[in-house]
Parts: sequence; C-alpha cells; structure tokens
Amino acid sequence: MENDVKALLGIKASFAEEKINKYLPLTSGMQNTIIEAMRYSVQAGGKRLRPVLMEETFSLFGGKGDEIYCFMAAIEMIHTYSLVHDDLPAMDNDMLRRGKPTTHAVYGEAMGVLAGDALLNYAFETALKAFDVEASNHKAIIKALRVLAKKAGIYGMIGGQVVDVESEKNQLDITEEKINFIYELKTGALIEASMMIGAILAGADDSEINLIEQIASKIGMAFQIQDDILDIEGDEKVLGKPIGSDERNEKATYVTFAGIEKSKKEVKRLTDEAIGILKELPYENKFLEDLLSYLVYRDN
Amino acid sequence: MENDVKALLGIKASFAEEKINKYLPLTSGMQNTIIEAMRYSVQAGGKRLRPVLMEETFSLFGGKGDEIYCFMAAIEMIHTYSLVHDDLPAMDNDMLRRGKPTTHAVYGEAMGVLAGDALLNYAFETALKAFDVEASNHKAIIKALRVLAKKAGIYGMIGGQVVDVESEKNQLDITEEKINFIYELKTGALIEASMMIGAILAGADDSEINLIEQIASKIGMAFQIQDDILDIEGDEKVLGKPIGSDERNEKATYVTFAGIEKSKKEVKRLTDEAIGILKELPYENKFLEDLLSYLVYRDN
Repeated sequence: MENDVKALLGIKASFAEEKINKYLPLTSGMQNTIIEAMRYSVQAGGKRLRPVLMEETFSLFGGKGDEIYCFMAAIEMIHTYSLVHDDLPAMDNDMLRRGKPTTHAVYGEAMGVLAGDALLNYAFETALKAFDVEASNHKAIIKALRVLAKKAGIYGMIGGQVVDVESEKNQLDITEEKINFIYELKTGALIEASMMIGAILAGADDSEINLIEQIASKIGMAFQIQDDILDIEGDEKVLGKPIGSDERNEKATYVTFAGIEKSKKEVKRLTDEAIGILKELPYENKFLEDLLSYLVYRDN
Repeated sequence: MENDVKALLGIKASFAEEKINKYLPLTSGMQNTIIEAMRYSVQAGGKRLRPVLMEETFSLFGGKGDEIYCFMAAIEMIHTYSLVHDDLPAMDNDMLRRGKPTTHAVYGEAMGVLAGDALLNYAFETALKAFDVEASNHKAIIKALRVLAKKAGIYGMIGGQVVDVESEKNQLDITEEKINFIYELKTGALIEASMMIGAILAGADDSEINLIEQIASKIGMAFQIQDDILDIEGDEKVLGKPIGSDERNEKATYVTFAGIEKSKKEVKRLTDEAIGILKELPYENKFLEDLLSYLVYRDN
C-alpha cells in the first residue's frame, strides 16, 4: 500500500505543480531578476504536500470550483518564502537544499531577502485572485484569506520560527514546552492552514473546520517528530541526505526529551487520533487517509 | 502657510499613529521578541505620510466608517517592513535611522529578517480586519486589498527596490529610464496605494480612482526628486542628517541626469499637474492640496 500512496502522491504533486506554475509571474520587465529568483525558488522541487493536502481536503467535502488553485499556489509560495529566508546567511546559512543551490547562493543575499518578500507578497496577490473566479463564494474566500494570513504570521509559522531561532542560540534554555510550541507553529500552522482552507472553500461548517484543524495539528506534530526520528534511524540512501545532523549541531529535538521509543509511540498515537477524527466525518476520501498515514510513517 | 500645513500634518500624523498603535500586536507569548521588534520598528517614528494621505483622500470623497483605519495601519506596516529589510547588512547595512538604532542593530540580523516578514504578513492580517467593521462595503475592501498587494509587490515597491539594489552594484549601467522606474515603483507605488485605497473605501468610481492614481504618481515622483535636491542643497540642521550622501556613495540620482535646475522645474511641473487634477474633481479638501505642495517643496 505504501508504494501505491507514494505513486499517487507523486501524480497529485505534479498536478499541483502545474497549477502553481500557472500562477507564478512571468519573467519580464526591468525587475526580471526578482521574478527569475521567485520562479527558481518555487520550481526547485519539494513534495508539494501543502497544496496536495489542501486539494484533498477540498475534495473530501465535495468542493468544486477553481478558487482552490489560487490558494494552493499561495500556500506553496508562503512555504517557499519561508525556506528562502531560512537559508539566508543570517539564519541557517545553507548553500544547498534538496541538492540544489539555495536562492541566495544563486542570486546573492540581497536578492534572497527580496525574493522571499516578493513570494510572501505575491502569495496574497494570488489568493486574492480567487475573487475573480466565476460564482465563487466571497464569504468563504474572506474566511480562507484570514486563515492563510493568521497561520503564516506571528501566531503561526513566523511565531514558531522566531522561537526556533532563539532556541538555537540558547540550547540550554530549551524546554519540552518550547519544542512543542516550535513544532506546532513552525510546521503545524501551515499544514493546518492547508487543510482548513480546503474545508472552508468546499463549504464545510465551523464545527467541521474545527475538526480538520485538530487533524492537521496532530499530523503536523507527528510529521515533525518523524523528521527527528529519521535523522537518527533513517536510511541515508532513501532520505537523500546524511543522518545525524541534529546530534552534530547539538540541536535539541522532541526525541532529546522523550527518547526514541516514546517518540515513536507519540507519532503512532497522534496519527491514529487524526485518522480516527477523519473517519468520524460523514465524508470519505480514502487517499487522504492513506496520505496522512504515509506522511508520518514515511522513510524520507 | 507652510508652517500651518506642517503643524496640521503633525496633528494628523499623531492621530494616525494612535490608530496604527491600536492595531499593533501586544507583546506576549513565547514569540514575544518578534512582537517587541515589530512594535519597535513601527514606533521608531516617521512622518506617517502614507496613512495621512490615505485618510485625507478618504475624506476628500466623503468617506465614513472605521475600515480605513485597518488600511492606514496596514500601509504603515508595509512601509516599515520595507525600511527594516532595507537596513539589513545584506542591503544598505544601516545601523541608524532617524537617529535611532535600526531593528537589526537592536535585535540581531535574523530577527531583522523575521520582523520584516512579520510586519508584511501582519499588514494583510490587519487589512483583513476591515471586513469585521459593521456595515463595511465588502466589494470596496476586496478592491482595496488588491491595490495594497499589487502596489507593495513586484509590480510595485519590491520591483523598484530590486532595480535599485541592482543599479547600486552597477552604477555604469544606470540610465534615466531606470531612475524613473525606480522612483515610480520604490517610492511612488505605496503613495499611489495610499491615496487609491482612501478613494476606493470612500466609494469613488473607477475614473476617479484613476485620477487619484495619476495625482499620487506625480507626487511620488516629485517627492523623490525633491529628496535628491535636498541631499545637495538642504540645510543639515533642518534635515536632521548630513547632506551630500548621494555624491559620497557615488549614487546616480535624477539630478545626476537632469541637473539641479531642470530637476527643480520638474518638481514644480509634477506638483502643479497633480494639484491641477485634484482641483478639477468636484470635491474639495484644502488640507490635502496644501499637503501635496508642502510634501514636494518641503525642506526636510
């Protein structure tokens, strides 16, 4: 089954990529360098998990209409900008990501800052295009915009990123509470946004949106803990990157506090709970169920 | 008259500041550092021209309602984020702005990047609050959001910033066309957004919004050329900063191409044209007229 899910995810990711590409600005004008840098950053690859999760949740609730594509592109632009800024010399100072030179490595540091800014701004420009879609539900789009903005900001992804940056400088001050906060916000928030926006645009009601937020929160947490586990026990060939980086960087992770056995149990508990909630909903999307399991039990 | 306008601008700016402060996030939670850095950046001062221009254009068209305050706060957050990122070591590497330590000088470079990101993101969160205002016109707010996003992005402010950054590295490649492009986008776009959003939220029609965009474009250009002139002929005591910085940095400006006499004529021509268009509108806001003159003939 795992291979089936992986293959299907690949197909869905390609479809999402096609849609995202359509919303990327075309290189032209005097500001062509920044557009090139934006396109390079987004097209450098990735699993496209967030747009796929969004579309699958949209389809779970029987969503129809093209406005979802604007938000699929927007969430991937926001995810990408966060990586571009994360890789900057002032932050993680990474010259490679997924085997390719990072944006600032190719275009210089100033353009790295600006390409990130441009992607974040363009994400909102793109999401606003949902209003142009014929017969789109403006109320739902407004709600989706609010979720997008909140989950990407200081009470979402950026909030987690800030505490992560501060913790890296003061490894002694790190607590289990801080690790949970970082995982919930830095990783969890955009996964919550993805699934919630899918539900909102498909017309889910508030109690359903709330359940989806809970599912996404658990999956986001399990996803991140699995990342820590793979950094210890993963197969470098399958992962495509060296393991043991957290230990080398003396980075405290969830596993540091809980130990590897308890961490594995936690991944299982969170995933089972998430899928349990999903199954209680009066709708079905078998691929989404399989995807949630695959995401957290993945080997890369 | 000039002193009257300056005094009145001071009062209007204080009023705008009060409104903006209400929309700043309160320092709390584990991510308190970033909120502190955001508040520090916005509260470090400035003339608050953009929110004042927005409110005065709103009032020109007889605008009523509180949704304007969300956008006044949003435009100032966007202006502030652009300064925070501009001051970064990778960009202009400035440690002081208006006599105060810049955001990255106080909070470190990583937090400087994140505070800028957070302000841009929070600007959209804040503008979206306009939908909460009772009896607000959702169609106008959607239009205003689009203008805000476009004028702040690659076809607006960021676009100008990119060409400016590239030009600084290659002073030999600079052309008059590029200077115009940079001034129109880097400075002009947010002034256009400010005045257009004021008009849109007040219910102005498309032809009126178009005239306001023309006025703002001319004022933005004149404002920036006056900046160049002041850097050559200004009084350091009144300006509050040393003159001659463009020459020391070998920075090509509008004056480099046109010469100081032609530049002064151009400031006058652009301002006269802008005020001419404003006077043709069937509405009146004497302070706005005076403000436009003052802005471009200012001595600091």
